[in-house]
Amino acid sequence: MLTLEEYIKMANDEINAIAYPSAPSGLYSPIAYTMQLGGKRLRPALVLMACDAFGGNVERALRPAVGLELFHNFTLLHDDVMDNADVRRGMPTVHKRWNANTAILSGDAMLSMSAQYIGQVDPNILPRVNELFHRTAMEIYEGQQYDMDFEVRNNVTINEYIEMIRLKTSVLIGCACKLGAIIAGASAEKAQALYDMGLSLGLAFQLQDDVLDVWGDEASFGKEIGGDIMNNKKTYLLIGAMQRAQGDDAIELRRWLNDSYAIRDKKVPAVRALYERLGVRQAANAAIEHYNALALESLSKADLPKEAHSAFERFINGLVGRVK
Amino acid sequence: MLTLEEYIKMANDEINAIAYPSAPSGLYSPIAYTMQLGGKRLRPALVLMACDAFGGNVERALRPAVGLELFHNFTLLHDDVMDNADVRRGMPTVHKRWNANTAILSGDAMLSMSAQYIGQVDPNILPRVNELFHRTAMEIYEGQQYDMDFEVRNNVTINEYIEMIRLKTSVLIGCACKLGAIIAGASAEKAQALYDMGLSLGLAFQLQDDVLDVWGDEASFGKEIGGDIMNNKKTYLLIGAMQRAQGDDAIELRRWLNDSYAIRDKKVPAVRALYERLGVRQAANAAIEHYNALALESLSKADLPKEAHSAFERFINGLVGRVK
Repeated sequence: MLTLEEYIKMANDEINAIAYPSAPSGLYSPIAYTMQLGGKRLRPALVLMACDAFGGNVERALRPAVGLELFHNFTLLHDDVMDNADVRRGMPTVHKRWNANTAILSGDAMLSMSAQYIGQVDPNILPRVNELFHRTAMEIYEGQQYDMDFEVRNNVTINEYIEMIRLKTSVLIGCACKLGAIIAGASAEKAQALYDMGLSLGLAFQLQDDVLDVWGDEASFGKEIGGDIMNNKKTYLLIGAMQRAQGDDAIELRRWLNDSYAIRDKKVPAVRALYERLGVRQAANAAIEHYNALALESLSKADLPKEAHSAFERFINGLVGRVK
Repeated sequence: MLTLEEYIKMANDEINAIAYPSAPSGLYSPIAYTMQLGGKRLRPALVLMACDAFGGNVERALRPAVGLELFHNFTLLHDDVMDNADVRRGMPTVHKRWNANTAILSGDAMLSMSAQYIGQVDPNILPRVNELFHRTAMEIYEGQQYDMDFEVRNNVTINEYIEMIRLKTSVLIGCACKLGAIIAGASAEKAQALYDMGLSLGLAFQLQDDVLDVWGDEASFGKEIGGDIMNNKKTYLLIGAMQRAQGDDAIELRRWLNDSYAIRDKKVPAVRALYERLGVRQAANAAIEHYNALALESLSKADLPKEAHSAFERFINGLVGRVK
């Protein structure tokens, strides 16, 4: 087994080696731009790590790993159009630097490219790989739809929120793990155990993101703290607070949610204090620990060699303490 | 062999039988709406016809045929967003009836669904089918990009235009023919001959569309005549006219192109008369005949049984005389 950083480097080297056609540049330049913006590259690294863990040939997992990262970046590209976001990884989004039509069409091309890359596996596993990838893609669109639906609803429950982030975020982490396992020739049961590990990991990861957006350190987190609070984003924390708040707390929370002109330096600390008073910070941390425990349980079921097991264990435990 | 109408009916029955998940309805309702708007269903009919022609089991081609129609409708859905079109097949477009975000996300889901449907083939042909489908998809995005690039260029050549419609329109007709042939177990050479037939057919089809938009009968064509002229759309006819026009003709053509407030009843007959005077109507018809002849030549190379050969021959010849 290699270190996580080594798998990430392998993924990055392969991403940097993608040969984009030179024409039409209006189609391919935005794709190259998007892929060069960087990112954690966790998904392709997980594909490689899972393949290695089951004794597979990591070289054979490289193209599919890049395919999964292309797919992930396609979803970000189209999400940015839908959210009308200006900035991604500190740079202008594609629809700002070019225009919305370019972002739509280049995104479509990234989705088809991702299927081309993911399909570069042994023909005998191609049906399973195809089935896994396209089902995951459909679930992610469903998650994005629920996320948009939740914006205009005020009665979203914690269970609905968990189901939404399972679809929007976690299934792709599960897919990365299972894809690597399938390429390595793991049994259906073991591949599924690693999928389940990824799913729980993804839930813990997203909940940790919600927490970091409120209590994170700006320098380490890499983006402004309190964005979710300013946007009234229905995270685990806000949904929990809306359910728990009574009397004066409920009045204060409602006042902040309705105040379109609230100043950041006032609203963020006030809502943060409310979250702490109402116990939702504690509840979120407990949920993160719960999903981490589930991830470790699924990892055990994958029955990996000791070294590989330890590598994933470090990965999971590293997530709880992460600051970015 | 069945009649074209019978293949179309089979395709329509299968399209009407698609089971869309009930939730989230914001994602799936626009897909069902799009697929129920109708259309000629030529692409899925060609998949079935090609499969039948090579003695394949047509039942096995049904799901991939529907996949190709899902893909085609996804491209129309996203094109309508990019063109900000209000109407499709006489009904409001998805981004008008819902909104642009819905059109983007539902289109993405249609693309992944199309890959799921097209992938429902024998595992031993899946690699070839995947490769054909995704390459075709990439070419179509390239064609759409060139089409958008041409809008802001005034020196587009006839050759560039033919290459653009080859990518944007014809490769999907070629793909439909080849897909059916592969499913039937045709040899690589014969499947490629049928692809080439579809490619020439697609070129003739698009050029005929350009002609019908200017000289068609409104009632038969199903949409207002002269739309391309009013939009200064760089069709085979306009590009040809720009190259040929000299002296007073050039001045008149330029005047119509620059007149943003031109009245339809004045501009359309005037430009139509210019096209006739400059001989581009004749040139377009000659090009259509040329591509029809090429299609017939490729058809012969496919070496089909007599009945199947005749069926495709009728299809090709019917295209020249079509009024819609």
